[in-house]
Amino acid sequence: MNPEDKHAGKLFILSGPSGAGKGTICKELLAQTQVELSISMTTRNPRVGETDGVSYYFATKEEFLRKIDAGGFLEYAEVYGNYYGTPKEPVIEKLAAGIDVILEIDMQGALKVKENYPDGVFIFILPPSMAELRKRLTGRGTETAEAIEMRLGETLKELSYIDKYDYCVVNGKLEEAVARVKAITIAEHSKVTFTAEELISKYKEEV
Amino acid sequence: MNPEDKHAGKLFILSGPSGAGKGTICKELLAQTQVELSISMTTRNPRVGETDGVSYYFATKEEFLRKIDAGGFLEYAEVYGNYYGTPKEPVIEKLAAGIDVILEIDMQGALKVKENYPDGVFIFILPPSMAELRKRLTGRGTETAEAIEMRLGETLKELSYIDKYDYCVVNGKLEEAVARVKAITIAEHSKVTFTAEELISKYKEEV
Repeated sequence: MNPEDKHAGKLFILSGPSGAGKGTICKELLAQTQVELSISMTTRNPRVGETDGVSYYFATKEEFLRKIDAGGFLEYAEVYGNYYGTPKEPVIEKLAAGIDVILEIDMQGALKVKENYPDGVFIFILPPSMAELRKRLTGRGTETAEAIEMRLGETLKELSYIDKYDYCVVNGKLEEAVARVKAITIAEHSKVTFTAEELISKYKEEV
Repeated sequence: MNPEDKHAGKLFILSGPSGAGKGTICKELLAQTQVELSISMTTRNPRVGETDGVSYYFATKEEFLRKIDAGGFLEYAEVYGNYYGTPKEPVIEKLAAGIDVILEIDMQGALKVKENYPDGVFIFILPPSMAELRKRLTGRGTETAEAIEMRLGETLKELSYIDKYDYCVVNGKLEEAVARVKAITIAEHSKVTFTAEELISKYKEEV
Protein backbone atom coordinates (compact mmCIF):
# COMPACT_ATOMS: atom_id res chain seq x y z
CA MET A 1 0.00 0.00 0.00
CA ASN A 2 3.01 2.26 0.32
CA PRO A 3 3.05 3.97 -3.10
CA GLU A 4 6.73 3.44 -3.76
CA ASP A 5 7.27 0.31 -1.80
CA LYS A 6 5.41 -2.33 -3.78
CA HIS A 7 8.41 -4.00 -5.31
CA ALA A 8 10.88 -4.09 -2.45
CA GLY A 9 10.88 -6.96 -0.01
CA LYS A 10 12.30 -6.53 3.46
CA LEU A 11 14.58 -8.73 5.52
CA PHE A 12 13.26 -9.37 9.02
CA ILE A 13 15.77 -10.80 11.47
CA LEU A 14 14.17 -12.67 14.34
CA SER A 15 16.69 -13.14 17.08
CA GLY A 16 16.91 -13.59 20.80
CA PRO A 17 17.94 -16.03 23.50
CA SER A 18 17.35 -19.75 23.16
CA GLY A 19 13.96 -20.53 24.69
CA ALA A 20 12.42 -17.14 23.85
CA GLY A 21 10.41 -18.87 21.16
CA LYS A 22 11.74 -17.26 17.99
CA GLY A 23 11.47 -20.57 16.10
CA THR A 24 7.79 -20.99 16.97
CA ILE A 25 7.00 -17.38 16.05
CA CYS A 26 8.87 -17.88 12.78
CA LYS A 27 6.82 -20.98 11.95
CA GLU A 28 3.57 -19.13 12.58
CA LEU A 29 4.63 -16.23 10.35
CA LEU A 30 5.48 -18.63 7.54
CA ALA A 31 2.05 -20.23 7.92
CA GLN A 32 0.06 -17.01 8.26
CA THR A 33 1.82 -14.57 5.90
CA GLN A 34 3.57 -14.36 2.53
CA VAL A 35 7.00 -14.06 4.15
CA GLU A 36 9.61 -16.64 3.09
CA LEU A 37 12.30 -18.26 5.18
CA SER A 38 15.98 -17.71 4.57
CA ILE A 39 17.61 -21.11 4.12
CA SER A 40 21.00 -21.74 5.68
CA MET A 41 23.96 -23.44 4.05
CA THR A 42 25.87 -26.07 5.99
CA THR A 43 28.77 -28.44 5.56
CA ARG A 44 27.32 -31.03 7.91
CA ASN A 45 25.81 -34.17 6.44
CA PRO A 46 22.09 -34.26 5.65
CA ARG A 47 20.00 -36.13 8.21
CA VAL A 48 17.23 -38.51 7.23
CA GLY A 49 14.33 -36.53 5.81
CA GLU A 50 16.35 -33.39 5.09
CA THR A 51 16.18 -32.09 1.51
CA ASP A 52 18.82 -29.92 -0.15
CA GLY A 53 17.46 -26.41 -0.71
CA VAL A 54 14.61 -26.93 1.75
CA SER A 55 16.05 -27.78 5.16
CA TYR A 56 19.49 -26.49 4.21
CA TYR A 57 21.69 -25.95 1.23
CA PHE A 58 24.24 -28.72 1.72
CA ALA A 59 27.77 -27.93 0.61
CA THR A 60 31.27 -29.33 0.91
CA LYS A 61 33.75 -27.54 3.09
CA GLU A 62 35.61 -26.39 -0.04
CA GLU A 63 32.49 -24.90 -1.56
CA PHE A 64 31.66 -23.19 1.72
CA LEU A 65 35.15 -21.69 2.12
CA ARG A 66 35.10 -20.44 -1.47
CA LYS A 67 31.78 -18.72 -0.79
CA ILE A 68 33.24 -17.08 2.32
CA ASP A 69 36.14 -15.74 0.24
CA ALA A 70 33.69 -14.41 -2.35
CA GLY A 71 31.78 -12.48 0.34
CA GLY A 72 28.78 -14.69 -0.32
CA PHE A 73 27.41 -14.88 3.23
CA LEU A 74 25.32 -12.49 5.31
CA GLU A 75 26.83 -14.35 8.26
CA TYR A 76 28.49 -17.67 8.96
CA ALA A 77 29.93 -19.57 11.87
CA GLU A 78 31.83 -22.74 12.58
CA VAL A 79 30.20 -25.01 15.14
CA TYR A 80 31.93 -28.20 16.26
CA GLY A 81 33.84 -28.42 12.96
CA ASN A 82 30.85 -27.80 10.72
CA TYR A 83 30.11 -24.52 8.95
CA TYR A 84 26.71 -22.88 8.95
CA GLY A 85 25.87 -19.69 7.11
CA THR A 86 23.23 -17.53 5.42
CA PRO A 87 23.98 -17.25 1.69
CA LYS A 88 23.47 -13.67 0.55
CA GLU A 89 22.34 -14.24 -3.04
CA PRO A 90 19.00 -16.07 -2.53
CA VAL A 91 17.99 -13.48 0.08
CA ILE A 92 18.84 -10.51 -2.16
CA GLU A 93 17.03 -12.12 -5.10
CA LYS A 94 13.84 -12.59 -3.08
CA LEU A 95 13.96 -9.03 -1.73
CA ALA A 96 14.41 -7.69 -5.27
CA ALA A 97 11.37 -9.72 -6.34
CA GLY A 98 9.34 -7.97 -3.62
CA ILE A 99 9.29 -10.95 -1.28
CA ASP A 100 9.80 -10.44 2.44
CA VAL A 101 12.38 -12.76 3.94
CA ILE A 102 12.62 -13.90 7.53
CA LEU A 103 15.85 -15.01 9.14
CA GLU A 104 15.84 -16.79 12.48
CA ILE A 105 19.21 -16.54 14.10
CA ASP A 106 21.09 -16.26 17.40
CA MET A 107 22.34 -12.89 18.59
CA GLN A 108 25.95 -13.28 17.45
CA GLY A 109 24.71 -14.13 13.96
CA ALA A 110 22.27 -11.21 13.95
CA LEU A 111 25.12 -8.79 14.68
CA LYS A 112 27.04 -10.08 11.66
CA VAL A 113 23.93 -9.78 9.47
CA LYS A 114 23.60 -6.19 10.64
CA GLU A 115 27.14 -5.45 9.44
CA ASN A 116 26.43 -6.94 6.03
CA TYR A 117 22.82 -5.81 5.61
CA PRO A 118 22.07 -2.79 7.82
CA ASP A 119 18.72 -2.29 6.01
CA GLY A 120 17.38 -5.40 7.74
CA VAL A 121 14.69 -5.03 10.39
CA PHE A 122 16.08 -6.44 13.63
CA ILE A 123 13.57 -7.89 16.05
CA PHE A 124 14.60 -9.12 19.49
CA ILE A 125 12.35 -11.86 20.86
CA LEU A 126 12.34 -11.96 24.66
CA PRO A 127 10.92 -14.39 27.17
CA PRO A 128 8.47 -12.76 29.61
CA SER A 129 10.86 -13.41 32.50
CA MET A 130 13.98 -15.33 33.43
CA ALA A 131 11.84 -17.63 35.56
CA GLU A 132 9.71 -18.48 32.52
CA LEU A 133 12.82 -19.00 30.39
CA ARG A 134 14.19 -21.42 33.00
CA LYS A 135 10.88 -23.28 32.93
CA ARG A 136 10.91 -23.55 29.13
CA LEU A 137 14.51 -24.74 28.95
CA THR A 138 13.89 -27.26 31.73
CA GLY A 139 10.76 -28.46 29.92
CA ARG A 140 12.80 -29.32 26.83
CA GLY A 141 14.65 -31.88 28.92
CA THR A 142 17.76 -31.61 26.75
CA GLU A 143 20.09 -29.96 29.24
CA THR A 144 21.12 -30.49 32.84
CA ALA A 145 19.99 -28.03 35.51
CA GLU A 146 23.58 -26.82 35.73
CA ALA A 147 23.83 -26.21 31.98
CA ILE A 148 20.54 -24.33 32.08
CA GLU A 149 21.76 -22.05 34.86
CA MET A 150 24.90 -21.34 32.85
CA ARG A 151 22.77 -20.58 29.82
CA LEU A 152 20.56 -18.20 31.84
CA GLY A 153 23.67 -16.33 32.98
CA GLU A 154 24.76 -16.05 29.34
CA THR A 155 21.31 -14.87 28.31
CA LEU A 156 21.37 -12.07 30.83
CA LYS A 157 24.66 -10.87 29.31
CA GLU A 158 23.31 -11.21 25.79
CA LEU A 159 20.42 -8.86 26.57
CA SER A 160 23.00 -6.09 26.16
CA TYR A 161 22.72 -6.62 22.39
CA ILE A 162 19.25 -5.03 22.55
CA ASP A 163 20.87 -1.71 21.51
CA LYS A 164 21.45 -3.12 18.04
CA TYR A 165 17.81 -4.01 17.48
CA ASP A 166 14.93 -1.98 16.08
CA TYR A 167 12.13 -3.79 17.87
CA CYS A 168 11.58 -5.87 20.96
CA VAL A 169 8.77 -8.38 21.29
CA VAL A 170 8.10 -10.22 24.53
CA ASN A 171 6.84 -13.72 23.84
CA GLY A 172 4.42 -14.37 26.68
CA LYS A 173 1.36 -15.47 24.75
CA LEU A 174 2.40 -16.85 21.37
CA GLU A 175 -0.53 -15.45 19.35
CA GLU A 176 0.08 -11.95 20.76
CA ALA A 177 3.77 -12.09 19.93
CA VAL A 178 3.01 -13.31 16.40
CA ALA A 179 0.45 -10.52 15.91
CA ARG A 180 3.03 -8.02 17.09
CA VAL A 181 5.70 -9.24 14.66
CA LYS A 182 3.12 -9.20 11.86
CA ALA A 183 2.25 -5.60 12.78
CA ILE A 184 5.95 -4.73 12.59
CA THR A 185 6.21 -6.18 9.06
CA ILE A 186 3.16 -4.14 7.96
CA ALA A 187 4.38 -0.93 9.61
CA GLU A 188 7.82 -1.32 8.05
CA HIS A 189 6.17 -1.41 4.63
CA SER A 190 4.31 1.80 5.49
CA LYS A 191 7.43 3.80 6.25
CA VAL A 192 8.17 6.82 4.11
CA THR A 193 11.05 5.52 2.00
CA PHE A 194 10.68 7.77 -1.02
CA THR A 195 11.23 11.45 -1.74
CA ALA A 196 8.53 14.08 -2.08
CA GLU A 197 9.50 14.44 -5.75
CA GLU A 198 8.90 10.75 -6.40
CA LEU A 199 5.52 10.90 -4.70
CA ILE A 200 4.40 14.05 -6.51
CA SER A 201 5.45 12.75 -9.91
CA LYS A 202 3.52 9.55 -9.27
CA TYR A 203 0.32 11.42 -8.41
CA LYS A 204 0.85 14.00 -11.17
CA GLU A 205 0.87 11.34 -13.86
CA GLU A 206 -2.59 10.34 -12.82
CA VAL A 207 -4.26 13.77 -12.97
CA MET B 1 4.38 -5.95 25.56
CA ASN B 2 7.49 -3.85 25.25
CA PRO B 3 9.10 -4.38 28.66
CA GLU B 4 9.82 -0.71 29.33
CA ASP B 5 7.00 0.83 27.34
CA LYS B 6 3.95 -0.08 29.39
CA HIS B 7 3.30 3.29 30.89
CA ALA B 8 4.00 5.63 28.01
CA GLY B 9 1.27 6.53 25.56
CA LYS B 10 2.12 7.73 22.10
CA LEU B 11 0.74 10.58 20.06
CA PHE B 12 -0.29 9.53 16.55
CA ILE B 13 -0.86 12.38 14.10
CA LEU B 14 -3.15 11.44 11.22
CA SER B 15 -2.79 13.97 8.49
CA GLY B 16 -3.17 14.32 4.75
CA PRO B 17 -5.17 16.07 2.08
CA SER B 18 -8.88 16.70 2.44
CA GLY B 19 -10.71 13.72 0.92
CA ALA B 20 -7.98 11.20 1.74
CA GLY B 21 -10.25 9.84 4.45
CA LYS B 22 -8.29 10.60 7.62
CA GLY B 23 -11.51 11.40 9.49
CA THR B 24 -13.08 8.06 8.64
CA ILE B 25 -9.91 6.15 9.56
CA CYS B 26 -9.77 8.09 12.82
CA LYS B 27 -13.37 7.15 13.66
CA GLU B 28 -12.65 3.46 13.03
CA LEU B 29 -9.55 3.57 15.24
CA LEU B 30 -11.55 5.13 18.06
CA ALA B 31 -14.17 2.39 17.69
CA GLN B 32 -11.75 -0.53 17.36
CA THR B 33 -8.88 0.36 19.71
CA GLN B 34 -8.08 1.97 23.07
CA VAL B 35 -6.73 5.11 21.45
CA GLU B 36 -8.34 8.41 22.51
CA LEU B 37 -9.03 11.47 20.41
CA SER B 38 -7.32 14.78 21.00
CA ILE B 39 -10.02 17.43 21.46
CA SER B 40 -9.53 20.83 19.89
CA MET B 41 -10.20 24.18 21.51
CA THR B 42 -12.08 26.83 19.57
CA THR B 43 -13.42 30.34 20.01
CA ARG B 44 -16.33 29.81 17.66
CA ASN B 45 -19.79 29.38 19.16
CA PRO B 46 -21.05 25.88 19.94
CA ARG B 47 -23.49 24.51 17.38
CA VAL B 48 -26.65 22.63 18.36
CA GLY B 49 -25.70 19.26 19.77
CA GLU B 50 -22.06 20.15 20.49
CA THR B 51 -20.89 19.58 24.06
CA ASP B 52 -17.98 21.39 25.71
CA GLY B 53 -15.10 18.96 26.29
CA VAL B 54 -16.49 16.42 23.83
CA SER B 55 -16.85 18.07 20.41
CA TYR B 56 -14.51 20.92 21.35
CA TYR B 57 -13.30 22.82 24.34
CA PHE B 58 -15.11 26.13 23.86
CA ALA B 59 -13.23 29.24 24.96
CA THR B 60 -13.43 32.98 24.66
CA LYS B 61 -10.94 34.78 22.45
CA GLU B 62 -9.27 36.17 25.59
CA GLU B 63 -8.84 32.71 27.11
CA PHE B 64 -7.49 31.40 23.83
CA LEU B 65 -4.95 34.22 23.42
CA ARG B 66 -3.78 33.78 27.00
CA LYS B 67 -3.22 30.09 26.32
CA ILE B 68 -1.21 30.93 23.21
CA ASP B 69 1.01 33.25 25.26
CA ALA B 70 1.50 30.53 27.86
CA GLY B 71 2.69 28.08 25.17
CA GLY B 72 -0.36 25.95 25.85
CA PHE B 73 -0.98 24.69 22.30
CA LEU B 74 0.61 21.96 20.23
CA GLU B 75 -0.67 23.98 17.27
CA TYR B 76 -3.30 26.60 16.59
CA ALA B 77 -4.63 28.60 13.66
CA GLU B 78 -7.04 31.40 12.95
CA VAL B 79 -9.73 30.57 10.39
CA TYR B 80 -12.22 33.25 9.31
CA GLY B 81 -11.79 35.12 12.59
CA ASN B 82 -12.13 32.09 14.84
CA TYR B 83 -9.29 30.35 16.60
CA TYR B 84 -8.79 26.59 16.61
CA GLY B 85 -6.03 24.78 18.44
CA THR B 86 -4.83 21.61 20.12
CA PRO B 87 -4.31 22.22 23.86
CA LYS B 88 -1.08 20.59 24.99
CA GLU B 89 -1.99 19.72 28.58
CA PRO B 90 -4.79 17.14 28.08
CA VAL B 91 -2.64 15.35 25.47
CA ILE B 92 0.44 15.21 27.70
CA GLU B 93 -1.66 14.02 30.65
CA LYS B 94 -3.12 11.14 28.64
CA LEU B 95 0.29 10.12 27.29
CA ALA B 96 1.69 10.13 30.83
CA ALA B 97 -1.19 7.89 31.90
CA GLY B 98 -0.20 5.38 29.19
CA ILE B 99 -3.03 6.30 26.85
CA ASP B 100 -2.39 6.61 23.12
CA VAL B 101 -3.78 9.80 21.63
CA ILE B 102 -4.80 10.38 18.03
CA LEU B 103 -4.81 13.79 16.44
CA GLU B 104 -6.51 14.35 13.09
CA ILE B 105 -5.19 17.45 11.45
CA ASP B 106 -4.34 19.13 8.15
CA MET B 107 -0.76 19.26 6.94
CA GLN B 108 0.02 22.80 8.09
CA GLY B 109 -1.16 21.88 11.57
CA ALA B 110 0.84 18.65 11.59
CA LEU B 111 4.03 20.58 10.85
CA LYS B 112 3.44 22.80 13.87
CA VAL B 113 2.74 19.75 16.06
CA LYS B 114 6.03 18.29 14.88
CA GLU B 115 7.87 21.42 16.07
CA ASN B 116 6.22 21.24 19.49
CA TYR B 117 6.14 17.46 19.92
CA PRO B 118 8.75 15.78 17.70
CA ASP B 119 8.18 12.46 19.51
CA GLY B 120 4.80 12.17 17.78
CA VAL B 121 4.28 9.49 15.16
CA PHE B 122 3.37 11.26 11.93
CA ILE B 123 1.19 9.33 9.51
CA PHE B 124 0.33 10.71 6.08
CA ILE B 125 -2.98 9.45 4.71
CA LEU B 126 -3.10 9.47 0.93
CA PRO B 127 -5.86 8.88 -1.59
CA PRO B 128 -5.12 6.05 -4.02
CA SER B 129 -4.98 8.52 -6.92
CA MET B 130 -5.82 12.10 -7.84
CA ALA B 131 -8.69 10.80 -9.96
CA GLU B 132 -10.17 9.06 -6.93
CA LEU B 133 -9.64 12.18 -4.78
CA ARG B 134 -11.50 14.25 -7.41
CA LYS B 135 -14.33 11.71 -7.33
CA ARG B 136 -14.57 11.83 -3.51
CA LEU B 137 -14.53 15.62 -3.33
CA THR B 138 -17.13 15.84 -6.12
CA GLY B 139 -19.27 13.26 -4.32
CA ARG B 140 -19.40 15.48 -1.23
CA GLY B 141 -21.26 18.05 -3.31
CA THR B 142 -20.00 20.91 -1.12
CA GLU B 143 -17.69 22.59 -3.64
CA THR B 144 -17.86 23.74 -7.25
CA ALA B 145 -15.90 21.87 -9.92
CA GLU B 146 -13.58 24.87 -10.16
CA ALA B 147 -12.93 24.93 -6.41
CA ILE B 148 -12.20 21.19 -6.50
CA GLU B 149 -9.64 21.60 -9.30
CA MET B 150 -7.96 24.36 -7.27
CA ARG B 151 -7.93 22.09 -4.24
CA LEU B 152 -6.39 19.25 -6.25
CA GLY B 153 -3.63 21.58 -7.40
CA GLU B 154 -2.99 22.53 -3.76
CA THR B 155 -3.00 18.89 -2.73
CA LEU B 156 -0.33 18.05 -5.27
CA LYS B 157 1.89 20.75 -3.78
CA GLU B 158 1.13 19.61 -0.24
CA LEU B 159 2.44 16.13 -1.02
CA SER B 160 5.89 17.68 -0.62
CA TYR B 161 5.30 17.57 3.17
CA ILE B 162 5.70 13.79 3.01
CA ASP B 163 9.37 14.26 4.01
CA LYS B 164 8.23 15.27 7.49
CA TYR B 165 6.21 12.10 8.07
CA ASP B 166 7.22 8.74 9.46
CA TYR B 167 4.60 6.65 7.69
CA CYS B 168 2.44 6.81 4.61
CA VAL B 169 -0.84 4.94 4.28
CA VAL B 170 -2.81 4.89 1.04
CA ASN B 171 -6.52 4.81 1.76
CA GLY B 172 -7.93 2.73 -1.09
CA LYS B 173 -9.94 0.18 0.86
CA LEU B 174 -10.88 1.61 4.24
CA GLU B 175 -10.49 -1.60 6.24
CA GLU B 176 -6.99 -2.14 4.83
CA ALA B 177 -5.95 1.40 5.66
CA VAL B 178 -7.33 1.06 9.20
CA ALA B 179 -5.50 -2.25 9.67
CA ARG B 180 -2.30 -0.60 8.49
CA VAL B 181 -2.61 2.31 10.92
CA LYS B 182 -3.39 -0.15 13.72
CA ALA B 183 -0.25 -2.11 12.80
CA ILE B 184 1.76 1.11 12.98
CA THR B 185 0.47 1.81 16.50
CA ILE B 186 1.44 -1.70 17.61
CA ALA B 187 4.87 -1.58 15.96
CA GLU B 188 5.59 1.81 17.51
CA HIS B 189 4.99 0.27 20.93
CA SER B 190 7.44 -2.51 20.07
CA LYS B 191 10.33 -0.20 19.30
CA VAL B 192 13.43 -0.46 21.44
CA THR B 193 13.14 2.69 23.54
CA PHE B 194 15.16 1.63 26.55
CA THR B 195 18.82 0.97 27.25
CA ALA B 196 20.44 -2.42 27.60
CA GLU B 197 21.11 -1.59 31.27
CA GLU B 198 17.42 -0.99 31.93
CA LEU B 199 16.47 -4.25 30.25
CA ILE B 200 19.11 -6.31 32.05
CA SER B 201 18.23 -4.88 35.46
CA LYS B 202 14.56 -5.69 34.81
CA TYR B 203 15.31 -9.32 33.98
CA LYS B 204 17.93 -9.64 36.71
CA GLU B 205 15.42 -8.75 39.42
CA GLU B 206 13.38 -11.72 38.40
CA VAL B 207 16.09 -14.40 38.53
